[in-house]
Amino acid sequence: MGSSANVPRRSFLQSTVAAGAAGLFLTGKESTAAEKSSATPAIQPGTTILFQGDSITDAGRKKDQGDTPNKQPGLGNGYAWMAASSLLTGPDGSSLTIYNRGISGNKVHQLADRWDQDCLVLKPNVLSILIGVNDIWHRLNGKYDGTVKTYEDDYRALLQRTKEALPDVTLVICEPFVLRCGAVNDKWFPEFDKFRASAAKLAKEFETVWVPFQSMFDEAVQYAPPEHWAGDGVHPSPFGASLMASTWLRTVQNA
Amino acid sequence: MGSSANVPRRSFLQSTVAAGAAGLFLTGKESTAAEKSSATPAIQPGTTILFQGDSITDAGRKKDQGDTPNKQPGLGNGYAWMAASSLLTGPDGSSLTIYNRGISGNKVHQLADRWDQDCLVLKPNVLSILIGVNDIWHRLNGKYDGTVKTYEDDYRALLQRTKEALPDVTLVICEPFVLRCGAVNDKWFPEFDKFRASAAKLAKEFETVWVPFQSMFDEAVQYAPPEHWAGDGVHPSPFGASLMASTWLRTVQNA
Repeated sequence: MGSSANVPRRSFLQSTVAAGAAGLFLTGKESTAAEKSSATPAIQPGTTILFQGDSITDAGRKKDQGDTPNKQPGLGNGYAWMAASSLLTGPDGSSLTIYNRGISGNKVHQLADRWDQDCLVLKPNVLSILIGVNDIWHRLNGKYDGTVKTYEDDYRALLQRTKEALPDVTLVICEPFVLRCGAVNDKWFPEFDKFRASAAKLAKEFETVWVPFQSMFDEAVQYAPPEHWAGDGVHPSPFGASLMASTWLRTVQNA
Repeated sequence: MGSSANVPRRSFLQSTVAAGAAGLFLTGKESTAAEKSSATPAIQPGTTILFQGDSITDAGRKKDQGDTPNKQPGLGNGYAWMAASSLLTGPDGSSLTIYNRGISGNKVHQLADRWDQDCLVLKPNVLSILIGVNDIWHRLNGKYDGTVKTYEDDYRALLQRTKEALPDVTLVICEPFVLRCGAVNDKWFPEFDKFRASAAKLAKEFETVWVPFQSMFDEAVQYAPPEHWAGDGVHPSPFGASLMASTWLRTVQNA
């Protein structure tokens, strides 16, 4: 996998649940994961969780039901819904409020355009963002002229604005990922790795939780081919989405 | 839900992760869950895990690849594979050995017929069993004359035989479940509840981990209709399987 050529995969993945592994991708929040017993869990009774992002998060949700938390139509059919259904049926699940406001095709600047009504007004306690694949894909398609610098600058501004409006929010940055199949060819690399590195840099800078989806999928292709996880290389199958939900839950609940 | 009419749902579900809630479904293993810090986790580096059961576990696995652990074809497309993929890509995942030997249509006596080659010889450290829906369904269809007593007696004998051959195995009994849709009609009740109660009784008797799938789905139908989780009421959709995997992982990892 060209997308992880320079990163030791196993230690990278483990860095989300244990302190000690050094490097670019170890964020402040992860450093505290080993001290779980003294930390306050990110998801507690009464927590409001918001999933934000592009089509991978959207996953066919009913936009006209976006104001109704906790119900499948408004949460879609992807990793966000799968993680939500696990939380809702788990301990204290009925006390949670979970929204999904991902929109297909979104890049960072499009999140920013709708951030007041689709994030800040909801006052999430936990805000999970997965964004980046369109920021490179639409450029490769000639539909967009933003660069990795645009991505990082726009993303930083969005996070700053969020922290100012919601100083106590637990931020969760999900690593952008692709599988090497379908629409994803060699033209994506090494450019895509730079987008991942920018997301990781921001996770460190803002001391967010970091969900290592690319490293997870880099592990997963040992057990099933890339197409099993995402037919077109970008949009996860139910198996890819289920694995993402599981890793999201493990990472956020251990943060 | 007739299937859980006599059980307080929320406390039932929570009984798998915290001691305190009393009653039929609280097993010895669950009592120790609150003392996690001093207990040895069921799944450690090097653990061999075996999933056993019927079609819900089988989920289209390639029977000729049943001897190859950890790969998707031999593990199928259901909750067992989804739980396995999460474990395999998680911490110490590459040290695990995970098999699936579920077979569609199986009742308890058919597990017993193939137990030497499909369980004991594999020497699992963790053995997860989900069995029971065919024991009632085939009776309702007139294909089988076993009763709930047959189920319980056969299941007890199988567990005794397992404990004698593998005294250190961690047993995981999964609660048989149905959704109220598709093939599942009023004729199933209250008979089905007795099968669930027998499985729970055995979990207590053998101090196994207990995975409360029926109570999980009884919670889940608040958030999406029964058909979303299992179109025919018996065989989970990818959403049902993903939720099962998540609950299986949370329960077994907290046991």
